[in-house]
Amino acid sequence: MDLNLMRELSVKTEARIVLLVLDGLGGLPGGDGKTELEAARTPNFDALAARSELGLSRPLGRQAGVSPGSGPGHLGLFGYDPVRYAVGRGILSALGVGIELGENDLAARINFATRDGSGRISDRRAGRIASGDAAELVNLLQKDVDLDGVEVILEHEKEHRAVVVFRGEGLSGDLSDTDPQRTGLEPLPVRSPSPEAEKSVRLANDFVAQADELLKDRHPANTVLLRGFGMHPALPGFRETYKLDAAAIASYPMYKGLSRLAGMEILEEGEGISGEVQTLKESWQEHDFFFVHVKATDSAGEDGDFGRKSNVIEEVDALLPEILDLGPAALAVTGDHATPATLESHSWHGVPFLLHSDHVLPTAESFGERTCAGGSLGVFDAEEIMGLLMGHALKLNRYGA
Amino acid sequence: MDLNLMRELSVKTEARIVLLVLDGLGGLPGGDGKTELEAARTPNFDALAARSELGLSRPLGRQAGVSPGSGPGHLGLFGYDPVRYAVGRGILSALGVGIELGENDLAARINFATRDGSGRISDRRAGRIASGDAAELVNLLQKDVDLDGVEVILEHEKEHRAVVVFRGEGLSGDLSDTDPQRTGLEPLPVRSPSPEAEKSVRLANDFVAQADELLKDRHPANTVLLRGFGMHPALPGFRETYKLDAAAIASYPMYKGLSRLAGMEILEEGEGISGEVQTLKESWQEHDFFFVHVKATDSAGEDGDFGRKSNVIEEVDALLPEILDLGPAALAVTGDHATPATLESHSWHGVPFLLHSDHVLPTAESFGERTCAGGSLGVFDAEEIMGLLMGHALKLNRYGA
Repeated sequence: MDLNLMRELSVKTEARIVLLVLDGLGGLPGGDGKTELEAARTPNFDALAARSELGLSRPLGRQAGVSPGSGPGHLGLFGYDPVRYAVGRGILSALGVGIELGENDLAARINFATRDGSGRISDRRAGRIASGDAAELVNLLQKDVDLDGVEVILEHEKEHRAVVVFRGEGLSGDLSDTDPQRTGLEPLPVRSPSPEAEKSVRLANDFVAQADELLKDRHPANTVLLRGFGMHPALPGFRETYKLDAAAIASYPMYKGLSRLAGMEILEEGEGISGEVQTLKESWQEHDFFFVHVKATDSAGEDGDFGRKSNVIEEVDALLPEILDLGPAALAVTGDHATPATLESHSWHGVPFLLHSDHVLPTAESFGERTCAGGSLGVFDAEEIMGLLMGHALKLNRYGA
Repeated sequence: MDLNLMRELSVKTEARIVLLVLDGLGGLPGGDGKTELEAARTPNFDALAARSELGLSRPLGRQAGVSPGSGPGHLGLFGYDPVRYAVGRGILSALGVGIELGENDLAARINFATRDGSGRISDRRAGRIASGDAAELVNLLQKDVDLDGVEVILEHEKEHRAVVVFRGEGLSGDLSDTDPQRTGLEPLPVRSPSPEAEKSVRLANDFVAQADELLKDRHPANTVLLRGFGMHPALPGFRETYKLDAAAIASYPMYKGLSRLAGMEILEEGEGISGEVQTLKESWQEHDFFFVHVKATDSAGEDGDFGRKSNVIEEVDALLPEILDLGPAALAVTGDHATPATLESHSWHGVPFLLHSDHVLPTAESFGERTCAGGSLGVFDAEEIMGLLMGHALKLNRYGA
């Protein structure tokens, strides 16, 4: 989608938009030939489908066959080209552990690793060090690493993984990894092809040197490898692009962080899915766009639990009338990607998409992958969803005379 | 498709992929309202469709309405943007006559033509000179033309048409045609806007001058017109892009040549379609990607022979179980373009596409243009097919965290 065009055509109105994302909603047929969504008893979604437009959304657009992570999946839903606006792994990790990022932040992922007597990496994961031990080392580094002119923020992720943020003026994310990718090699120095990154190169290498000194007696975690450097991305925000005062209701730090990148306000979510809907109702007067994120569909899919995924969908279905009662001008129900229980992972498949407004061309009486495949929106790119929502909410001026 | 993304995400595995191309497969309704594919008795394709994803492929993507030649049609199937990676007509002709090309090769098409006493072109096709006569002139030129510092390779095509390849260091394909496009005009000198093409300009004009001297008493074929200059294109190869050890099974030089451009190994094909399937079976352990090309569908369509085209499709259908028995992780059945018998030519219409793997969302019980139009892949660009195959074969890492 052309974000400049959106900025040119969008108008501020009272109309409210809801983007309800069931993470990993898309599925594949299980034993009886139905997908998780098709198998779920969803009387409310089905009745809504008969008053909605349907389609299958492609999370990465023309990058067919590629399974998106949560970052690209949501950037697409928010209208950003997920390949052009690539967000570095370090930034996504920092968002995932709940670090609130700003535009002066450079982030990277850390692996605790083992270096042998000759200086070569003998284990890239430090024997998959226990989380508790790694967290202690993160605290040690946080306390004693001291870099000239920048603040250093460290957070532990899981096992051997952590994340570091350098906060200061004049940083650059155009830095190479130190991870040599296989054992038996020495770690690489951080390098950059761009002269503007000179300060960041120096800081990153100084960080590694100080960490090595602090960790030298902490075998097997006696060194750190840095990967996925990236700056906080400068995304065109929802306010200027869509003239929306947008809010996010999500329970996981990663999704809160992605929403913050787009300029959304993060609301205090309640307990569970019903708590999220409660927050939506309580905040209805305060905003004109609501991103509501349900995580449990994806988790069930990742666990290969077909039935549990259907159950979560049914739980959301039961709450749908409360959302409809608020009277959104446009409501989309979809996922950021498919997570078929049969695959136990994110996948590249099309994602069911339903868009309800007063101005729709319905094609089916139920909400499922196959009714969506035959819908009036066809198979289309997720990046177009924001435009569709804006159009259906009558928030876009005509293009051209 | 973003080939850099493919290179970044693709992984080497044991899984095998088959891309089965029935040239010109797409069709239009004949007398009884069915297309060639719909009219054919295809129990095996239909049973497979019920375990596959379907879609209609657009050979040139967004260049709707444009009928592709075999070159662009296959480049799209191989994942290359067929407009960006335009392959010169000279190169396609050289591939078509079976010249094995390398990266130092500059090719152009030759028309034998007639020049009158005043030096103007009076017949751009030399009275459509007989093939035997033209072949003799090609031999004459091959024997006596001598260019400084490059090898010259000539092959006759058909009637007044031939192809020339200049092989040597420092050549450029950025050259203009000598064909004035209509009679009554003098042939044009070869020119180029780019200084790097100076050597090639000199060589091409020298070639024309020597040919004119050798042909001066050979009226009506007393000169040559050169068209469609182009260098052997540097396509990102299958090995580095997809980490595939790819093989091509095709009976015509043009398709072998196109496969070679993509870095595929050309296998010795057997006799007829069953011979190609036999080659596939014998080579199954040696490669992890197989492009199998069936020409006869296109030839029947070009001849306007609806029934013969259906018969060829039935012949392939009968061989399908042998391919399935090999157990490909992903199998696509499609065409490079449509060749409706009613049009007796390549056309711009959508091409039926079927993709079978263990991870599919079936939507129909038969393989035909109209079941494909309603499939879960929708109407999509042929350029995305390689990504889909890689995804379905589980050969792509996730994009982003």
